[in-house]
Amino acid sequence: MLLKTLREEVLEANLELVRRGLVLYTFGNVSGISRQDALVAIKPSGVPYEELKPEHIVISDLEGRTVEGTLRPSSDLPTHLELYKHFPNIGGVAHTHSEFATAWAQARKPIPCFGTTHADYFYGSVPVTPELTPEEISAAYEKNTGVVICRTFAQIDPDAVPGVLVANHAPFCWGKNAAEASHHAVVLEYVARMAYYTVGIRPEAKPLAQELHDKHFLRKHGSNAYYGQVNKK
Amino acid sequence: MLLKTLREEVLEANLELVRRGLVLYTFGNVSGISRQDALVAIKPSGVPYEELKPEHIVISDLEGRTVEGTLRPSSDLPTHLELYKHFPNIGGVAHTHSEFATAWAQARKPIPCFGTTHADYFYGSVPVTPELTPEEISAAYEKNTGVVICRTFAQIDPDAVPGVLVANHAPFCWGKNAAEASHHAVVLEYVARMAYYTVGIRPEAKPLAQELHDKHFLRKHGSNAYYGQVNKK
Amino acid sequence: MLLKTLREEVLEANLELVRRGLVLYTFGNVSGISRQDALVAIKPSGVPYEELKPEHIVISDLEGRTVEGTLRPSSDLPTHLELYKHFPNIGGVAHTHSEFATAWAQARKPIPCFGTTHADYFYGSVPVTPELTPEEISAAYEKNTGVVICRTFAQIDPDAVPGVLVANHAPFCWGKNAAEASHHAVVLEYVARMAYYTVGIRPEAKPLAQELHDKHFLRKHGSNAYYGQVNKK
Amino acid sequence: MLLKTLREEVLEANLELVRRGLVLYTFGNVSGISRQDALVAIKPSGVPYEELKPEHIVISDLEGRTVEGTLRPSSDLPTHLELYKHFPNIGGVAHTHSEFATAWAQARKPIPCFGTTHADYFYGSVPVTPELTPEEISAAYEKNTGVVICRTFAQIDPDAVPGVLVANHAPFCWGKNAAEASHHAVVLEYVARMAYYTVGIRPEAKPLAQELHDKHFLRKHGSNAYYGQVNKK
Repeated sequence: MLLKTLREEVLEANLELVRRGLVLYTFGNVSGISRQDALVAIKPSGVPYEELKPEHIVISDLEGRTVEGTLRPSSDLPTHLELYKHFPNIGGVAHTHSEFATAWAQARKPIPCFGTTHADYFYGSVPVTPELTPEEISAAYEKNTGVVICRTFAQIDPDAVPGVLVANHAPFCWGKNAAEASHHAVVLEYVARMAYYTVGIRPEAKPLAQELHDKHFLRKHGSNAYYGQVNKK
Repeated sequence: MLLKTLREEVLEANLELVRRGLVLYTFGNVSGISRQDALVAIKPSGVPYEELKPEHIVISDLEGRTVEGTLRPSSDLPTHLELYKHFPNIGGVAHTHSEFATAWAQARKPIPCFGTTHADYFYGSVPVTPELTPEEISAAYEKNTGVVICRTFAQIDPDAVPGVLVANHAPFCWGKNAAEASHHAVVLEYVARMAYYTVGIRPEAKPLAQELHDKHFLRKHGSNAYYGQVNKK
Repeated sequence: MLLKTLREEVLEANLELVRRGLVLYTFGNVSGISRQDALVAIKPSGVPYEELKPEHIVISDLEGRTVEGTLRPSSDLPTHLELYKHFPNIGGVAHTHSEFATAWAQARKPIPCFGTTHADYFYGSVPVTPELTPEEISAAYEKNTGVVICRTFAQIDPDAVPGVLVANHAPFCWGKNAAEASHHAVVLEYVARMAYYTVGIRPEAKPLAQELHDKHFLRKHGSNAYYGQVNKK
Repeated sequence: MLLKTLREEVLEANLELVRRGLVLYTFGNVSGISRQDALVAIKPSGVPYEELKPEHIVISDLEGRTVEGTLRPSSDLPTHLELYKHFPNIGGVAHTHSEFATAWAQARKPIPCFGTTHADYFYGSVPVTPELTPEEISAAYEKNTGVVICRTFAQIDPDAVPGVLVANHAPFCWGKNAAEASHHAVVLEYVARMAYYTVGIRPEAKPLAQELHDKHFLRKHGSNAYYGQVNKK
């Protein structure tokens, strides 16, 4: 993949967060990876979205060294890198402080799968990480945020649950590329909002039945998917 | 009715969901029927609303066979067909995952008729379907979603209650044509939102008095209606 | 006052409800009165706001007989007339089904005066009417809605509390003219929303102190007002 | 600093509140100070934002006497002046009745620091002032609002917690200039909203760990800050 293309895709995926109302000021960041080049493109730190141009997107290697670009990368870059290293199928990562997903992260409660909207995208609850230890916070904090996410997914397939709530922080989402990572961030916020309303209506609300969950997830994913126009087999 | 007209009406009714903020990405679908031709026009599956053109609307017969159009119909088509077969007066069906109506569906609680806004459109609570059985889910899932809706309306007049919450899924609404089905979907979301706030203020809130309910419903429906400019007699 | 001017003012006050997000479809209606002519101008029934023109505004006498205009007046006209007859200082009435004010009406709870935003406009709680009796509903329902509002204000000064929640229905507001009535409807919705959040944070929240209430109300009202640019003395 | 520049900055900071949806009608006001000139520029009272021009911004001395401008200053000017006198590092003050921050003020609960979004801007809870006494309300009310804020910050560093909730009233925020004061008002509203959702999900939610709080606050503030493009050392 040309770096030019990657940069444009990453810019576009960042702007999608703005269009969908997920970011305030300079909050949030999306990256994309070229696996072939082992290079990651990410939003620069603290630059207003309305001023972002493709040339502002920073290109970094997997150790966090800037390869192209004159701006500092997002300070969350080490978290993104950790995810790329441990989740081999992902091509993009999106981090936001979107309101409802962040509230679940702040409450340190996983988002239960209450309905088919959730089941279409996330297989089971969206988990919350454990807290980082004081040591994990004091040094290499952003890298360790990635470490604790990967630890949370020790028994969970990141391709079936493409997002997580970092405790007392906010969500990270991922996907096959930067666009899908942002798409998942938008859907996660939608699902988080509806889950909030659901427990408001019925605090003891139950997740949907396993059969219904499987039906919806497999309608859109895997070899027998039949949603949309593209035959995914 | 010309199929061209039906297609345009169905397109327009789909776009109304976008204008009113009821749909995210490709969520949701609206259909309309020509009873005379026994043909249904419906949104294609997974196509972004902003790209929808009349020629994308798929024409299907009542068995779900595509008669006109090159795209796959919405995967929810069999649910729509089931409703057309059992509710003889309806001419349109609208399905959304709108936030508050979906939250009530996820909480599996009927929306009580708390006020005249609700009473103007829905006579009594908006019901929730029972869960589908594992068998109903595993084969012909979308058709069975329609079956369980019709079962829910065994003792309810679908013309007086033009909508339902499918358990752990989302609402379906209907009306005399596609436009009215979408209109009902928009009002249902509004009513669901206000009912959510109402129980937030007073968890034990009571439905409005029967006399007031009748007054409002009959002000807009039936032979003595006196709301609006058109004499409905 | 020229009827032409009154019609334009009433149209403008109706459109203000749209701009502020208080109305869905054809919900809501605002009227204004020319006390000198004993004539009321009101929105027609069931006409979309985007199509409203000054000539659509219906002119009625105080008995509800149309004096000018070819459309039917809002079906709530008799409620407006009742208010004009009993509240001698008001020049406009606004009725909406705005979401939060309606939720308080549906919960049948007065909106407590939790803060200075409320105190700036409404002196004390915004009251809820008692329910109408079956007899009051069955005949002259809309007139009786006005009757029950006036009864609610038997011990309350309508000039100090320019709005009410009709039980299981929605708010009515008023003011010195149509524009102020709409302005009060917008502020009531804002106050209702913040009161909803307030009890969400602290269910046992208390109204503000009487001294603070008086200070804020009298800063904007009465002979010693000192808010804004116009000397109100 | 030229007064012309100050006036333009203050106008712009006021308009930022409109763009971010924090103000209704003429609610809210932002000021900025020229420490060198001991002059404060502030929004006039009760003027619609859409009509505001730089020449409407009122210039006042620190005793509240208008030095330039023909309109009355915001009635909250004495509160702003009190803050400028006691918080030596601040250059701007923003006051709004934004919905969620006001709800916390009405509930008279400090906003706990539930997550890193909050920790990035406010070090610890956003405090609530005690109520003003009847005497403080009856005379020099607006000045005393400033007095009670300063009293609240007797043991709190106003540079580390750039905002406060005035009991039963609404928030005041500040910053190094008018723009930053408005920025803090916007972030406070965002943080207040997420805190509201957080306690909705888990009423007994706990603040984030002290180490995480320190990490995030110091990532953006102080001599070792490493967020953004500007080296703040």
